[in-house]
Amino acid sequence: MPESSAIRDLGAFVAATTLDDIPPEVRHQARRTLLNFVAGALGAASDPTVAAAARVLGECTGRATVIGRGDRLEPMAASFVNAIASNLLDYDDTHLATVIHPGAPVAPPALALAETRALGGADLVLATALGVEVACRIGLSVSPEHYDRGWHITATCGVFGSAAASARLLGLDAEGVAHAIGIAASASSGLVENLASAAKNVGVGNAARNGLLAARLAAEGYAAAPTALEGRLGWARASGRPMDLEVLTGELGSRWELARNTYKPYPCGIVMHSVVDAGLALRAGLRDPLREVVDVEVAGDALLLARGDRAVTDERDARVSIHHCAAAALLWGAAGVREFGRERVMDEAVRTMRSRVRVALDASQPRGAARMTVRLAGGEVLETTVVHPKGSEAVPLSDAELEAKLRELAAYGGARCEPDAVIEAVWGLERAPSVAPLTALVAGR
Amino acid sequence: MPESSAIRDLGAFVAATTLDDIPPEVRHQARRTLLNFVAGALGAASDPTVAAAARVLGECTGRATVIGRGDRLEPMAASFVNAIASNLLDYDDTHLATVIHPGAPVAPPALALAETRALGGADLVLATALGVEVACRIGLSVSPEHYDRGWHITATCGVFGSAAASARLLGLDAEGVAHAIGIAASASSGLVENLASAAKNVGVGNAARNGLLAARLAAEGYAAAPTALEGRLGWARASGRPMDLEVLTGELGSRWELARNTYKPYPCGIVMHSVVDAGLALRAGLRDPLREVVDVEVAGDALLLARGDRAVTDERDARVSIHHCAAAALLWGAAGVREFGRERVMDEAVRTMRSRVRVALDASQPRGAARMTVRLAGGEVLETTVVHPKGSEAVPLSDAELEAKLRELAAYGGARCEPDAVIEAVWGLERAPSVAPLTALVAGR
Repeated sequence: MPESSAIRDLGAFVAATTLDDIPPEVRHQARRTLLNFVAGALGAASDPTVAAAARVLGECTGRATVIGRGDRLEPMAASFVNAIASNLLDYDDTHLATVIHPGAPVAPPALALAETRALGGADLVLATALGVEVACRIGLSVSPEHYDRGWHITATCGVFGSAAASARLLGLDAEGVAHAIGIAASASSGLVENLASAAKNVGVGNAARNGLLAARLAAEGYAAAPTALEGRLGWARASGRPMDLEVLTGELGSRWELARNTYKPYPCGIVMHSVVDAGLALRAGLRDPLREVVDVEVAGDALLLARGDRAVTDERDARVSIHHCAAAALLWGAAGVREFGRERVMDEAVRTMRSRVRVALDASQPRGAARMTVRLAGGEVLETTVVHPKGSEAVPLSDAELEAKLRELAAYGGARCEPDAVIEAVWGLERAPSVAPLTALVAGR
Repeated sequence: MPESSAIRDLGAFVAATTLDDIPPEVRHQARRTLLNFVAGALGAASDPTVAAAARVLGECTGRATVIGRGDRLEPMAASFVNAIASNLLDYDDTHLATVIHPGAPVAPPALALAETRALGGADLVLATALGVEVACRIGLSVSPEHYDRGWHITATCGVFGSAAASARLLGLDAEGVAHAIGIAASASSGLVENLASAAKNVGVGNAARNGLLAARLAAEGYAAAPTALEGRLGWARASGRPMDLEVLTGELGSRWELARNTYKPYPCGIVMHSVVDAGLALRAGLRDPLREVVDVEVAGDALLLARGDRAVTDERDARVSIHHCAAAALLWGAAGVREFGRERVMDEAVRTMRSRVRVALDASQPRGAARMTVRLAGGEVLETTVVHPKGSEAVPLSDAELEAKLRELAAYGGARCEPDAVIEAVWGLERAPSVAPLTALVAGR
């Protein structure tokens, strides 16, 4: 392998970094990422989609916990199911600069390996931190063209994070980690076109599962081309643009992309969050929204429209629909898991409200922003613009809000679980000699 | 799902086609594809790379035979190992118009499902035919740009063939098959940059394994976007160019891409075959090649040079090296598995001969052709040009040659196996009420 290449530089970083090298506030973000992952997985544990995944992978029995379902599967299989569960309700974490949701692909293989190899909580935190960093760095080095082109970046870059985290927990040296990441390049996939279908979750689940496979094969001596990422016929160019190597490795180990991870306050597509906040703000001025509201216009940039201008036929659509996000916020003054659940999505009143929502392009809006204009029956017009929604880097969720999110999701998912004990276990991971107490708490049976 | 879309049209085709709809000579190509697949897997069964894959997947025990190793794994795991084994020696089948090697990704999941679900040999032949057709059709609809861009088309399109074959064997209806193919679009990956490394085999193994997963999830109700392939943010555009829907479905069911499948006579990259044939032809005029040959020039188009102009450090390089292909043919007058095995690749004489080989661009050569010019110590110059190498559509391998290839590989792989019984079982598949006799014959223990 030549002196320097993308996978070699990342491999050296992942193999050499210890928890002490990571600033305390960044390590705390790793724990927040893990808490958010566990919350999402608990919330969807009983969902038929997760149950189906568990059935399909069920033949691969093993020792890794499937969160909230009581099953124990072989680590790759458990990673697939846990990643799908964590991602299913669109309630992920988000690295906003890339729009990667790193927790779902990275945390499941890290948890499965830490559990089945009897590693400590500090190992889990470290591997999660490194995996998130690798996924987000690679994503950043090809952004925004990679995602714009149709690649679901959470899956396509998540596989690198899974490979890196897994390789670290398997104890691979720099070259081994490099090969794991390079092998993962030949397993990177996931499409924006499929975002409103279960195929989206499959992409995320495969990122978790195939990254772990890449690391295990690297541990057995499987190799990749040194230039798997940046080469002429490598991953970055094949998927749409050359890699910016400066962005990939600039200040690696001192500037942490993980530090910028955020956590969704609403279970819907991240670019829709400004729409929700705008709706909630205007809702405060209404008494009987269904009678009062005549017409709603939501204006935003091309990305908002591309992702969210969609008819709603089921709850999957609703989670990436501007119309439903606006209607739910205006109608109920809330946008939690219930408001995005099947019953409420199919509700007659919200259908009516959705039919009043129109979408407009306003290229002057920055990415992630939304302007909402509500015309009332009496002729009055309410308008607000949200640039930094709740949960964004500018307005981050507090630890207490994140804990509340876990409690909400644990209750929604219905698994047997003591949320406060789970929260305490995650916050205390760095001092835990084993992850067994945590996995026991989230196993759900 | 709308009336017509790429996955819907393919789904309808796969769900409705019966063996009687397929002309006898095309069905025979399906059996030849299966024979070639079994041969490749037997040949590599004892290879350390395959052994490592079997270890990594070994936790997923089940009832599907791993060829030549005596293991039985869960079907996805068995598919991964068998696909890697079949592809490892670069001795695949080839659909030359796309350069897809369809057997490795398609046959393993078909065999695993036919075996574990107690289906008949006719089911296996039908599923293989349909899977190969889907993989090659999709590949053709984005060729040549898709491969040129860096996507290892065997893996990226193989996953569709695996999904289609698996969906058919799972008994899915047209919509179910469509969803399986659409889900597979979010699992399509594999890079040309990684071709000279084990990461290449991982891509092929994952195509087999992830296509089967897509079909099993579709059987559980998982869906994909109807436009997963041709949509604005779908697979074809994301990976480099819009899909040609005319090419995809033109004469579907009457014109068979499977009919054009070919089988490698030499275990090396397909574009190198003209180099081998040229070397074998010129070898006939030499008595002591190592002393006589001063200089060898191999001229071909840009693809030949892009794939094959490479220094040789191990047997993986050798299999995609113009230098080794030319040197082996000139030196030994043979280019079988032995000549591409580690011992001969590292041999002193062939190193010397390789050092005498130069590569030149000749854009006037058609794709797949090679001109070889050998200068001898006495000043004499020998030259030949091969346009249609052995094994190509113009000069296909006979059934007898394919049988000889299986015997060569069975001996090379060393698994306990009666080659003639295997050959008879494959030729007789359409009349076999069960595939159990075949899997018993190739299990190897």
